[in-house]
Amino acid sequence: MPRPLDLHPDRLFPADPGTRAIARALYAGVRALPIVSPHGHTDPAWFATNAPFSDPASLLIIPDHYVLRMLYSQGVPLGALGVRSRDGSAVESDPRAVWRLFASHYHLFRGTPSRMWFDWVLGEAFGITVQLDAETADHCYEVIDAALKTEAFRPRALFERFGIEVIATTESPLDSLEHHAAIRASGWSGRVVTAYRPDPVVDPETPGFAENVARFAASAGEDATRYAGYLAAHRFHRARFRAAGATSTDHGHPTARTADLSSEDCEALYRRVLAGASAEDAELFRAQILTEMATMSIEDGMVMQLHPGVHRSHNRALLERFGRDKGGDIPVSCEYVAALGALLDRHGNNPDLTLILFTLDEDVYSRELAPLAGHYPALRLGPPWWFHDSPEGMRRFRERTTETAGFYNTVGFNDDTRAFLSIPARHDVARRMDCTWLAQLVAEHRLGEEEAHDLARALAYDLAKAAYRL
Amino acid sequence: MPRPLDLHPDRLFPADPGTRAIARALYAGVRALPIVSPHGHTDPAWFATNAPFSDPASLLIIPDHYVLRMLYSQGVPLGALGVRSRDGSAVESDPRAVWRLFASHYHLFRGTPSRMWFDWVLGEAFGITVQLDAETADHCYEVIDAALKTEAFRPRALFERFGIEVIATTESPLDSLEHHAAIRASGWSGRVVTAYRPDPVVDPETPGFAENVARFAASAGEDATRYAGYLAAHRFHRARFRAAGATSTDHGHPTARTADLSSEDCEALYRRVLAGASAEDAELFRAQILTEMATMSIEDGMVMQLHPGVHRSHNRALLERFGRDKGGDIPVSCEYVAALGALLDRHGNNPDLTLILFTLDEDVYSRELAPLAGHYPALRLGPPWWFHDSPEGMRRFRERTTETAGFYNTVGFNDDTRAFLSIPARHDVARRMDCTWLAQLVAEHRLGEEEAHDLARALAYDLAKAAYRL
Amino acid sequence: MPRPLDLHPDRLFPADPGTRAIARALYAGVRALPIVSPHGHTDPAWFATNAPFSDPASLLIIPDHYVLRMLYSQGVPLGALGVRSRDGSAVESDPRAVWRLFASHYHLFRGTPSRMWFDWVLGEAFGITVQLDAETADHCYEVIDAALKTEAFRPRALFERFGIEVIATTESPLDSLEHHAAIRASGWSGRVVTAYRPDPVVDPETPGFAENVARFAASAGEDATRYAGYLAAHRFHRARFRAAGATSTDHGHPTARTADLSSEDCEALYRRVLAGASAEDAELFRAQILTEMATMSIEDGMVMQLHPGVHRSHNRALLERFGRDKGGDIPVSCEYVAALGALLDRHGNNPDLTLILFTLDEDVYSRELAPLAGHYPALRLGPPWWFHDSPEGMRRFRERTTETAGFYNTVGFNDDTRAFLSIPARHDVARRMDCTWLAQLVAEHRLGEEEAHDLARALAYDLAKAAYRL
Repeated sequence: MPRPLDLHPDRLFPADPGTRAIARALYAGVRALPIVSPHGHTDPAWFATNAPFSDPASLLIIPDHYVLRMLYSQGVPLGALGVRSRDGSAVESDPRAVWRLFASHYHLFRGTPSRMWFDWVLGEAFGITVQLDAETADHCYEVIDAALKTEAFRPRALFERFGIEVIATTESPLDSLEHHAAIRASGWSGRVVTAYRPDPVVDPETPGFAENVARFAASAGEDATRYAGYLAAHRFHRARFRAAGATSTDHGHPTARTADLSSEDCEALYRRVLAGASAEDAELFRAQILTEMATMSIEDGMVMQLHPGVHRSHNRALLERFGRDKGGDIPVSCEYVAALGALLDRHGNNPDLTLILFTLDEDVYSRELAPLAGHYPALRLGPPWWFHDSPEGMRRFRERTTETAGFYNTVGFNDDTRAFLSIPARHDVARRMDCTWLAQLVAEHRLGEEEAHDLARALAYDLAKAAYRL
Repeated sequence: MPRPLDLHPDRLFPADPGTRAIARALYAGVRALPIVSPHGHTDPAWFATNAPFSDPASLLIIPDHYVLRMLYSQGVPLGALGVRSRDGSAVESDPRAVWRLFASHYHLFRGTPSRMWFDWVLGEAFGITVQLDAETADHCYEVIDAALKTEAFRPRALFERFGIEVIATTESPLDSLEHHAAIRASGWSGRVVTAYRPDPVVDPETPGFAENVARFAASAGEDATRYAGYLAAHRFHRARFRAAGATSTDHGHPTARTADLSSEDCEALYRRVLAGASAEDAELFRAQILTEMATMSIEDGMVMQLHPGVHRSHNRALLERFGRDKGGDIPVSCEYVAALGALLDRHGNNPDLTLILFTLDEDVYSRELAPLAGHYPALRLGPPWWFHDSPEGMRRFRERTTETAGFYNTVGFNDDTRAFLSIPARHDVARRMDCTWLAQLVAEHRLGEEEAHDLARALAYDLAKAAYRL
Repeated sequence: MPRPLDLHPDRLFPADPGTRAIARALYAGVRALPIVSPHGHTDPAWFATNAPFSDPASLLIIPDHYVLRMLYSQGVPLGALGVRSRDGSAVESDPRAVWRLFASHYHLFRGTPSRMWFDWVLGEAFGITVQLDAETADHCYEVIDAALKTEAFRPRALFERFGIEVIATTESPLDSLEHHAAIRASGWSGRVVTAYRPDPVVDPETPGFAENVARFAASAGEDATRYAGYLAAHRFHRARFRAAGATSTDHGHPTARTADLSSEDCEALYRRVLAGASAEDAELFRAQILTEMATMSIEDGMVMQLHPGVHRSHNRALLERFGRDKGGDIPVSCEYVAALGALLDRHGNNPDLTLILFTLDEDVYSRELAPLAGHYPALRLGPPWWFHDSPEGMRRFRERTTETAGFYNTVGFNDDTRAFLSIPARHDVARRMDCTWLAQLVAEHRLGEEEAHDLARALAYDLAKAAYRL
């Protein structure tokens, strides 16, 4: 007999009954607040075309790198999961077979956030009442597949049902933003904005960098051969993104290094990186552009986000066969105090700048990030990111940052996902864990209950809107 | 209506009722023990002159870098807080205006130790019964201002009321120690001792280093041009400090590096640093002097403290305008195992030396510091320091060090503060958090209740007296 | 009056009554499972000869580096503890005197795992009912001494009484494995296997390295002057170890660095290290051999273990006087992501390889190890090791790895000890702490109770058997 799916109303709340009661009361005040999703990777084409999602596996499994990595780690080949290979070699093409394979390995996710998110999608989004496993796989597949064919599961209907007030996607300056234009032209009331992610024209180690820069400058009517032209092209595209609703930029760099070079040095560096950069020049160029972006953010008001510290595509064989974003990215140690020095010397005392820092290196929470954000007016702390977007990750974040940076130097929650159906589940985990943390402070008489209610709302809603200027 | 100030008798105790009861019982046994404050930064002039403190803002806000940094991080200019600028530009001079600005931002401190300390000062030191906010600001100001004009709030009266058995201040060898002499000459029974902090004559990167060394040697009657004279001057001043009650030295270095060079190399290095040191020579000189200080500590019995790992005055613009200690110091990663090698090779096995290690890099608690202190007879672990002098910081310290270093290789609590009125609050937080940790061990049957009572007393009182030889 | 020894049945379980009840139920299902000890340092001679242990101090104190380090850190000389010096200078030779000295310092172990293990040995192994201290020292000594003279305390009887299903010892390829042969020849049913630890012929910085390699190759009938002969000798000895039951290899390296050099570079490097290696060549050789060992593991099926990141014998004076393993080993920061690159590029996607990673640098749990093991099919995470084989260490391990690597990329518990009598206590602590962690997940509705029972068994028994192929 299948086991019932248990989405317990008290999930993630502290076991101690007194503390749990406080957490429940706090959560009741924020559970139904609209979702502000200021940073993520949903596809704007979904909302532009409002076409139905094709099938359960293509929607929920094949594009989810959290799912792929866990199955792969236990010997499940990516091809058997329907992940398309670059060499065109055969992979599983039956979504039901992919789904069954996933279901038969679902126990691997015990104790992980993927399990919590997925259970929510099954139970709350699709109304499934049994636990997913090999036996219930087909039943679940059929329920989901049928639902996806209905109007209620079209992207816009889900957007509205999920209570999303605003969602940001992420595009590069090489993107036409046509989907965002189509959304606005459609008259649909959903607010979908873009974010300016210039990595392909900022990172000289991107394949095709020089061509990217040439297109980037040409489309802006600027001279790509000179650094001034390159900067002007950024200004042009930033304005274009602002017009498409963007309130933020995003920067995914190997490190947090920043630089503040003279004009002459910038010009010479720019020429070198266009001609083919050394590793050190590439690093220095990325570092300089972060400072340039901060300067432009002060001009145009766009909030800046920095996501450093990942060794991308650590598994080279997998990269070659299946491409990027298949679960082979691994965090590395990441230093911020010296790295951010040049940018902070230039702009750190300017309250008009908001630079939101993320990390995968939790060591820096209490040592570097909380002290920096608890001092510089320009800095804020982003929520726990990626591997740390999880109950324990959130607990560590609050435990290690609150005492030095407080709550008001943090910016609420980001779901940072392309897994659209899991977005409410992710915000719900964050709201529950923040209420749990606040409830503990109340239970230990470190915070008043009224204050905790204010804070619960701030963490769930207000801070994200304010920090991202949404 | 103003909200009542809640200094709950169970604050910081665990929420679980059984564990809380144990914590309460442990705390009852240590709550009223005298305060031993073996490391801090109060001004000996207070106790020498016993003059009244001037006003609430000058006493409680303007000199508190924890307070300044949080307000500054949220866009409050330091000038508006009455912090004097070096260029003499206008700053707020009305203490009541400073106080109101602080009160209207008091919510920023939710969840921080500053909030706990400050609430204690309001409620316990001044008998205020309402929470501080914009509305109650004037009331609180008036209560405090009136109290400060009374005899009961003179420094010596507070010292006695706070139950301070002994307090150490910190002076450089360039200090005359006149205030300590005045205290002793006054016949007052309060025990205020100094500590030998030679950084200005040890760190070649200190502005005016060569002049400092010249004065330092001259006042000792030694030849500043030779290394032997320099060392003899240390011996002279250490003896002078011992005579003023000092039982410890303190060393605030960028890193924990130590060295043990030959006499010839020392002599040559000394000449180079006097002439203007390179960064590497400066580092090497500091490293060598740590080992020399250890040698002298074995001779004269002074306990040695090492506080490494801070990037001082990271915010250069702020340093230029307002000077040091305004909240712009940021911790950095700090290695101990290799760094301490030279000193430990020389003196680590000598139980006559006590070297107390502090850190702002919590990563090293379980990896480096607990293993080192759980092995070398000369090493002890200082309590959680500065940013980590907080409930969560204390919890992490015990969780990560106890299993390897035990309790008896730690040295009790240091308040490390110049915020005199908060001293009892800081010791109280430490006593509560240690009782909470012990109660959890008892509740989980990892420690007997009788043993926990012994340990609670040791952590609150005995270990500090013993380790600092007070 | 002596205090009663308290081995509370609920020890280590959470204080919250509801969560404790869940933990108790989970533990009831795994408490009595057989012990699988896949990695440790017991002496096979014990089981081969089955000779009685000599006396309480020689069995329980003198060889225990956890005990020695704590006593030494508080000023107890190793000689007074009966540790033999290399220079033959006099040390305490009366085991009762050693025991009394230990007993009078037993309070130093409060809050440490040594205390928990030792209490178990006193209470459960020897039936002692009083706490050990200076007063009860003689009583405890006599009870233990008398027991050790009985048949019931011979090694094989204890092995059976402890419910050990299989235990692995660790030998170098220079070992004859005669004790393992004798065990098998004896007809005794206990399963004692060896593990292949080739450090003395892999680490060019081992004293006598070239001689070791010469013996190693000669005993295999291979040409020690060529790299191919050296590798063939590994294959020979690995087969010899397999025949003695080995299912695993173990590698204790300063770092996790791996390399994958060309044949020519290997040959040249091999010649250089035989002639006397530079530090960099030694590191590169160790790195290359890790990859060679992985290749051979794929051939012969032996599971590979890597234990990096210790500064061995940090205390040089102690090393000179008393030799290795006296408590002077100190962990250092250890990087895995870049270091393992070469090996993982070569073999990381091969599910036939199992490489079990250990660390003493807990920072890498969430940042590096869980992401790596949650992706590469060849990787698994070893349990918390050495200083972290403790309740808090186990808690941190699960809190920081589960959400990214899940449970099934971990391998159950290793006791890693030569302290034979403490083995059941160590496994019991691990079982209790895993049940505590699972109970918390159940209480917070992050895991079903039925699933938790499956996992409790997996963590206590199944995963170790499977991962180590036992």
